[in-house]
Amino acid sequence: MAEILTSSKPADWRSLDPENVLYLELASGRVVIELAPDFAPQHVANVKALVHEHYFDGLAIVRVQDNYVVQWADPDAEKPESARKIQHARRTLSPEFERAVDPKLPFTRLPDGDVYAPQVGFSGAFPVARDPKTGKTWLVHCYGMVGAGRDAPADSGGGTELYVVIGQAPRHLDRNVTLLGRVVQGMELLSALPRGTGAMGFYEKPEQRTPIKAMRVAADVPESDRTALEILRTDTPTFQALIESRRNRLEDWFHFQAGHIEICNVPIPVRPQKP
Amino acid sequence: MAEILTSSKPADWRSLDPENVLYLELASGRVVIELAPDFAPQHVANVKALVHEHYFDGLAIVRVQDNYVVQWADPDAEKPESARKIQHARRTLSPEFERAVDPKLPFTRLPDGDVYAPQVGFSGAFPVARDPKTGKTWLVHCYGMVGAGRDAPADSGGGTELYVVIGQAPRHLDRNVTLLGRVVQGMELLSALPRGTGAMGFYEKPEQRTPIKAMRVAADVPESDRTALEILRTDTPTFQALIESRRNRLEDWFHFQAGHIEICNVPIPVRPQKP
Repeated sequence: MAEILTSSKPADWRSLDPENVLYLELASGRVVIELAPDFAPQHVANVKALVHEHYFDGLAIVRVQDNYVVQWADPDAEKPESARKIQHARRTLSPEFERAVDPKLPFTRLPDGDVYAPQVGFSGAFPVARDPKTGKTWLVHCYGMVGAGRDAPADSGGGTELYVVIGQAPRHLDRNVTLLGRVVQGMELLSALPRGTGAMGFYEKPEQRTPIKAMRVAADVPESDRTALEILRTDTPTFQALIESRRNRLEDWFHFQAGHIEICNVPIPVRPQKP
Repeated sequence: MAEILTSSKPADWRSLDPENVLYLELASGRVVIELAPDFAPQHVANVKALVHEHYFDGLAIVRVQDNYVVQWADPDAEKPESARKIQHARRTLSPEFERAVDPKLPFTRLPDGDVYAPQVGFSGAFPVARDPKTGKTWLVHCYGMVGAGRDAPADSGGGTELYVVIGQAPRHLDRNVTLLGRVVQGMELLSALPRGTGAMGFYEKPEQRTPIKAMRVAADVPESDRTALEILRTDTPTFQALIESRRNRLEDWFHFQAGHIEICNVPIPVRPQKP
């Protein structure tokens, strides 16, 4: 894989669009999230609206469940008197669990099938599934995917609670939660957090939570303070070569070639943008 | 799933065999590993021999690579003068990457296929794959599986370096490494460790490592100091019901039933043994 990336061309990479990038600012550093407006336009717009009104600033990571998710939210959400107020954004939205396949949306299909979906592949940097029978496509729950937590009703989420997958892909959540983006840098700031000891990994004491300094849309941050990244395009021969290099590992260390790859094992390389 | 476990019978559970259980003792607590002598008899015997001669005591967790593995070893392994000596155990062994299918080995097959192997299921508490064409079976790299690190030659491992999967199942390692057990309690003591910032997640400074207080075979620990656990049998109707409850989640929260399950998403319940 290193050789493929070394010999890649500048056109194999794209810059992240600062209008579709969120920064989750923690004391330990910055988590960079690329948003997926093609798959969750209403949720992406609403989370950006929440960010613009500083909804998340001062809230906290309230849940870390091992091999599952990290989640941040308003710890006082259930207390009417002290819950964080929303000014212009929405608290809940209709779900965006799946959308119609559109030939204009790129789709680089993987060759080896999937346990959960008829077809899987990549649309931009996002792992997606498709069902030709229904004509629908949806984002899938791989490591690092970001979703909008909800209660039991499908329309009870809206982005005020966000979670990130930190373990084995919980694919049973596909089409049950609106996924809206993916962490492209800083996963280790989330995945190495102490696990919560309460039910479902919630922290039992307020002091165990990790405070959120701020969430920002990259475009709203002065250019000098942005994290300038490039991400490998997935609609290129270079990405096809990368997939093949992971299906059949040619390094001397490997004595057996898997000959297959599962969608959540495909890495999407990210690198600092050259000034 | 909770209902299925509540209504399970005592015979649905088995005690762990203390001769096939390792304790990895850290300052933060105890990691409990069940060994797999049916799949890696030589490696299991050798790791127990290493443990008996206190090979691991005072060594350290030297590598934590995000979404991949935690590994412990002798930090001075490459320095002949200070490397930990081996007395009676072996430093290297022939690989035990796969073994012949044996009708005496239990195999509860999963119904939904697999991206990497012709058949997958459970043998005892272990996720396994089978290939009817070759007549071989092997342990697969799910979250919590324990393997013997090695250098490039297939016979360069032997159990002096052990790793545990802490991320998306790295199935390309199947049949490339000898897996010898699985963590059944204490994963969060490994998975939440700070990630190493060196190549492949190795720590760059000695003080970043997590010291190993001791490794012990449970049978060698006074009974009062053992962690008495029971694990759900996988050759029972109760386990079949559990699988079905995870393929099609009936909880109100779920609006879409996956109808499928991937091997590494099947939980193997563990509970304290009643005195």
